[in-house]
Amino acid sequence: MQLSKEILEKLTTIVGENYIFTDIETRNYYGHDETEDYVFPPNVVLKPANAKEVSEILLIANDYKIPTTPIGARTGLSGGALSIYEGIGLSMERFNKIIEIDEQNLQVTVEPGVITQVLRETVAEKRFFYPVDPSSMGSCWIGGNIAENSGGARAVKYGVTKDYVLNLEVVLPSGEIIWTGANTLKNSTGYNLTQLMVGSEGTLGVITKIVLKLLPKVSHNVLMLVPFYKAHEACEAVSAIFRAGIVPSALEFMERDAIDWTLEYVDGINVSIKPEHQAHLLIEVDGNYPEVLMQEAEKIVSVVEGFEIDEVLFADTEDQKNMLWKMRRSVAEAVKSNSIYKEEDTVVPRYMLPELLKGIKQIGAKHGFISVCYGHAGDGNLHVNIIKGDMTDDNWQTQVPIGIKEIFELTVALKGTLSGEHGIGYVQKNFMNIAFSKVHLELMESIKRVFDPNNILNPGKIFPDYN
Amino acid sequence: MQLSKEILEKLTTIVGENYIFTDIETRNYYGHDETEDYVFPPNVVLKPANAKEVSEILLIANDYKIPTTPIGARTGLSGGALSIYEGIGLSMERFNKIIEIDEQNLQVTVEPGVITQVLRETVAEKRFFYPVDPSSMGSCWIGGNIAENSGGARAVKYGVTKDYVLNLEVVLPSGEIIWTGANTLKNSTGYNLTQLMVGSEGTLGVITKIVLKLLPKVSHNVLMLVPFYKAHEACEAVSAIFRAGIVPSALEFMERDAIDWTLEYVDGINVSIKPEHQAHLLIEVDGNYPEVLMQEAEKIVSVVEGFEIDEVLFADTEDQKNMLWKMRRSVAEAVKSNSIYKEEDTVVPRYMLPELLKGIKQIGAKHGFISVCYGHAGDGNLHVNIIKGDMTDDNWQTQVPIGIKEIFELTVALKGTLSGEHGIGYVQKNFMNIAFSKVHLELMESIKRVFDPNNILNPGKIFPDYN
Repeated sequence: MQLSKEILEKLTTIVGENYIFTDIETRNYYGHDETEDYVFPPNVVLKPANAKEVSEILLIANDYKIPTTPIGARTGLSGGALSIYEGIGLSMERFNKIIEIDEQNLQVTVEPGVITQVLRETVAEKRFFYPVDPSSMGSCWIGGNIAENSGGARAVKYGVTKDYVLNLEVVLPSGEIIWTGANTLKNSTGYNLTQLMVGSEGTLGVITKIVLKLLPKVSHNVLMLVPFYKAHEACEAVSAIFRAGIVPSALEFMERDAIDWTLEYVDGINVSIKPEHQAHLLIEVDGNYPEVLMQEAEKIVSVVEGFEIDEVLFADTEDQKNMLWKMRRSVAEAVKSNSIYKEEDTVVPRYMLPELLKGIKQIGAKHGFISVCYGHAGDGNLHVNIIKGDMTDDNWQTQVPIGIKEIFELTVALKGTLSGEHGIGYVQKNFMNIAFSKVHLELMESIKRVFDPNNILNPGKIFPDYN
Repeated sequence: MQLSKEILEKLTTIVGENYIFTDIETRNYYGHDETEDYVFPPNVVLKPANAKEVSEILLIANDYKIPTTPIGARTGLSGGALSIYEGIGLSMERFNKIIEIDEQNLQVTVEPGVITQVLRETVAEKRFFYPVDPSSMGSCWIGGNIAENSGGARAVKYGVTKDYVLNLEVVLPSGEIIWTGANTLKNSTGYNLTQLMVGSEGTLGVITKIVLKLLPKVSHNVLMLVPFYKAHEACEAVSAIFRAGIVPSALEFMERDAIDWTLEYVDGINVSIKPEHQAHLLIEVDGNYPEVLMQEAEKIVSVVEGFEIDEVLFADTEDQKNMLWKMRRSVAEAVKSNSIYKEEDTVVPRYMLPELLKGIKQIGAKHGFISVCYGHAGDGNLHVNIIKGDMTDDNWQTQVPIGIKEIFELTVALKGTLSGEHGIGYVQKNFMNIAFSKVHLELMESIKRVFDPNNILNPGKIFPDYN
């Protein structure tokens, strides 16, 4: 669409001439995220300073029916921040303050544009712990984490973003500003709009302030890497660890290819992997009592020794721990730097993981694609990277979507669903009817219309094009 | 309203003649819960056997615009299950099965009419832990817990009902049946209708199956009772314990009057209370390592010794623990058996508790009522029992509502809200505009209309009569 001079003047009046951009470089920059190679530039990029400016922008957007897409750190993996119908790209980068660390109540009030790792480190200085740690935490923002209900390695013990959000200041598409809840740990007062907002991918409102729950800092952890000769046994061990009464603080699965590519593409990782190792589990326990952690680690070792494993590597130093985590966190980047790819974010009850993995490989074999799988096995959350490799363009475009559909059908049949932590956004939306009935989708779309009758806010996301 | 012979015949056809009741005894029985002395009998009580029957009932209710109120164990404290506009009372008592304990995935699938304590004990036999323990857990049902987002003593460490609900089978007011989510620990797939359902007090749909997350059983705990000479110092100690890096598994506050009345009205509780004790904290830590629990208990003692306290009582035996918990759980009953009362369920950030308590007493003094306060101090959740005692009927009816309004205004000013775990239901609905703006309430009401355009399901709850 074209935005008229009149509209641009009105927008300039709101944000000031230093914070409105129509040049193609800026528009392209804000038109992509980490989702494959998509680029959907908005017509104009705005960088509002506060909720009032966001409100005024949304009033204009409503008046002129301009699609408006909130944009975070653009680290998303489902295209949630792409301006697929152009219009206004609403960069939240100036909302970058940690407003208050409430030491008495173990809460932090923060703006959406704060980098997740910065938040974690800042509260850690006060001896607090914000556990949510997406692999992209060094660059992603807390606002995007809320929009997508991000998880990460520690979700298995500590939960995902939704479990820490107490209250949100939200600019509704109508321009009204509300706080969704209260700054309390418990709340049975009306419908839970806070949780409705979390994971709504910027389609129901623009988040401008966030109150998060914090935990007391945890002082110790033990990290181990367990090499399995059989990938499906690694998956089976995941469930066995929980049945032994242990809740690890991380339980990550990596297929052999994932590690191989990481060792090849990422510098400074010194781990000896044998050709016979089909998969690894990276297992962490944490707590304040080192002697307890050693007991738990021993219990874990005795569980995994029930499977065919090679020697367990314990990380003895902080450097070794950092190296193992760097390896895990670099998998996605390494796999993706190696080929054109598509990434799916399947999630199932954790015991179903071996069956999911087996099924994915069978589907790949049938349609002629290979996949590299890794992820948060403790949560049953398996990231499936489908690799183009030397597939023909034709097969890539015709066979892969059929295969992805089958993977999602399998996931749902195993009582799982399409996305564990990346969101549906743009790239998964046409698979939504695998997980949801027509009635169910219509219910969600009707909620969308309640908030956003003109469909100005992040249109073209979550809901299928047909239906 | 009167239900015609035609309607009653249709309903009989659905549930069978053994499960439809129009006699006044049955109607009265299902017309009250534990909320003050309200009785609102429905015109007819139905006891459906399954989701299909519920669906058929709701289709009739829609056709004839009959108010339909889901009824659980009737232990509610906000009148959520009262048929205030008569119509159909939908007793869920035949939904009383624990369908499956999934030992591999640490999940349980259960029907809404299962008693919470039965669920806890049944999963405990398999070495699992369902932590949510409302004081009424011996009689309340899991479906009602979800409808009101119930908490309990262990919420401070383990969270409330919402934190355990993974997936819900819901009959929508339209008669359609959906599962709200998936049986997974993580889910970023569309709007979170599961969490929208939790705490919606039976106004958005009828819950017919529930998938809950379980934890591995925790083997040990240490319980102590700490007498404080000053009530506000007991409140201050709550926050200090967390700041010392400890997350107790329970942290309960009882004013002196609460204990006095309990000792007088409940048999078999043998605790020595001195007249100088203004308040007590009941503090529990739990875990699998007794030596760690002793260290944590010692840390707690060193924190509370920073205040003016009398000797800390450690519960040495299971019997002693049970007695202390019985004392705590009997407070509500004891206070209520003593006088006509009104109970409020205020919740604030926990550090605000001393200020809340002080304010409540001042408001009481101003309007001439006394209050007995107790509750889940670790969550900032204070139950305020306003006692009629020898107040005149006139003052009771005119002054107390003004005082309650002021208490809620104070609660909201302290960044808290109206209800922590009891819900709004019938008795608190006209205070909702203290916590929410008109825009916010309209948003919630519009969501209600999306689900229930004819307003047949539990009408007259949550939303103010005016507005």
